[in-house]
Amino acid sequence: MMHDTKARSQATPTIGVFDSGFGGLTVLRSLIHHMPQARYAFIGDTARLPYGSKSRRTIARYAAQSAQFLVQEQGAEFLVIACNTASALALDAIKEAVPTIPVLGVIEPGAEAARAASHTGDVLVIATDATVQSHAYLAACKQRGLRTIEKAGPLLVPLVEEGWIDHPVTREVIEIYLNELRSEAGEHGFRADTLVLGCTHYPLLRSAFEHAVRPGVTVIDSAESTAQAAVKLFNGRVGSALARPSATKPKQTEVRCFATDSVEKFERLGSRFLGRPVGKVTLVDLGG
Amino acid sequence: MMHDTKARSQATPTIGVFDSGFGGLTVLRSLIHHMPQARYAFIGDTARLPYGSKSRRTIARYAAQSAQFLVQEQGAEFLVIACNTASALALDAIKEAVPTIPVLGVIEPGAEAARAASHTGDVLVIATDATVQSHAYLAACKQRGLRTIEKAGPLLVPLVEEGWIDHPVTREVIEIYLNELRSEAGEHGFRADTLVLGCTHYPLLRSAFEHAVRPGVTVIDSAESTAQAAVKLFNGRVGSALARPSATKPKQTEVRCFATDSVEKFERLGSRFLGRPVGKVTLVDLGG
Repeated sequence: MMHDTKARSQATPTIGVFDSGFGGLTVLRSLIHHMPQARYAFIGDTARLPYGSKSRRTIARYAAQSAQFLVQEQGAEFLVIACNTASALALDAIKEAVPTIPVLGVIEPGAEAARAASHTGDVLVIATDATVQSHAYLAACKQRGLRTIEKAGPLLVPLVEEGWIDHPVTREVIEIYLNELRSEAGEHGFRADTLVLGCTHYPLLRSAFEHAVRPGVTVIDSAESTAQAAVKLFNGRVGSALARPSATKPKQTEVRCFATDSVEKFERLGSRFLGRPVGKVTLVDLGG
Repeated sequence: MMHDTKARSQATPTIGVFDSGFGGLTVLRSLIHHMPQARYAFIGDTARLPYGSKSRRTIARYAAQSAQFLVQEQGAEFLVIACNTASALALDAIKEAVPTIPVLGVIEPGAEAARAASHTGDVLVIATDATVQSHAYLAACKQRGLRTIEKAGPLLVPLVEEGWIDHPVTREVIEIYLNELRSEAGEHGFRADTLVLGCTHYPLLRSAFEHAVRPGVTVIDSAESTAQAAVKLFNGRVGSALARPSATKPKQTEVRCFATDSVEKFERLGSRFLGRPVGKVTLVDLGG
């Protein structure tokens, strides 16, 4: 038994996943789907969410604390920043906080997926207010030769958390936001064929968005894009250990969840995002 | 000039007003209306909003820090906790943090106004999730012999902040929430004739609620109720200095606004809540 545990510990890297809340569980869900052999430690900084309304300085400080917790206390060897706001505003600060660890955000994979999907080169992005104000998607898309129009959709996160996933109000709000995007796109002579969902809550609305967009428009789910990018990045560093199916009977992937507050809400709503029970969530104090 | 300033300083008490965000500016607006002669210091703990999703322990710690800032650094002689969540979960902790200062929350004045308005003794309350879960209105109304049904309306704050005040989606959401309340009230044999708006954002939706309720139902705006209670409490302690119109030319009430983050958003959206420009908002660090 001791030997087995040790061998597994050496062979099975821990991937740390961080979000300001529990929306990033959609990214964890995609990661587990693509790399079921890894172990995962997820922290939601729920005491200080939402990051979307906070300044770059504050977000960088908060995110660095969570990254250090995952690496120093949970032994994470790779980090996925499953939070668009933190990826947009604090990725460099996080890399500085854990300089020896590969860190992957959600912006670049989303932009890369948009590049692969778009034929016209014209892309629409819907995200939180802070992500849009950072223009991180605009910059990442521009580097790939894409033209981009961004729009904030501040009602979508509360609608998802209210559980109004397949709900007429949600469809109406999505229609209003998309109409505003289309109107602005029209003014700029855009022929947009790709819509990036730039918030980790939005994968739960993927179906609603796919119904609402015009025919021929591809909806990019940045959680899925990030998981695919993680497979490439992390598998390249540890060989085929992560994605290789176990020779023994497959067992449920090991996931440890932590939150800085609101464990009850995390446990209650988290399963909807993870697509399976989140189990017991451990409260941690990051000192703020 | 020096003499004038000194005399004014002695005669004009400072009222400290605290909220997790800037919704409490609706309470400040009503306070200024009723007591234009006072000076005001308002702090919005915007770095850590919303309190509505946080635990009692965390809210108590945050609120106490803001109260101490208003008293120790801004010289507040009275405190209004213009935040339903903090009033519901942390009023005792705040009173302990500033033991020599009279502190008024928003729950008791709202319940008292409901008692005065209701003939049937059956009252409905709509508030944030945390306020409802605290059952603070239920308890305060029960003390006054009222039966109460509470409901969380988590989409209303984001709708107000999106600026969708007079908007079909907002009317639809209000209708859905009220229908759920009415349905539950019907099951309990309630004959509710009073609806308490138990969140400082909701006064901006007062008109929408007044249009949506059945004829004969009174809508209680807890911001207004709190300001009226403050007049009684504070004027009783300082004589008539606060409400007495100045003998000299009336001038704009002095208001200093502070925030722990997001000064830009505070300045941009705050005026809608205060009903006049909030002016320059000063960033303060409460240490985490």
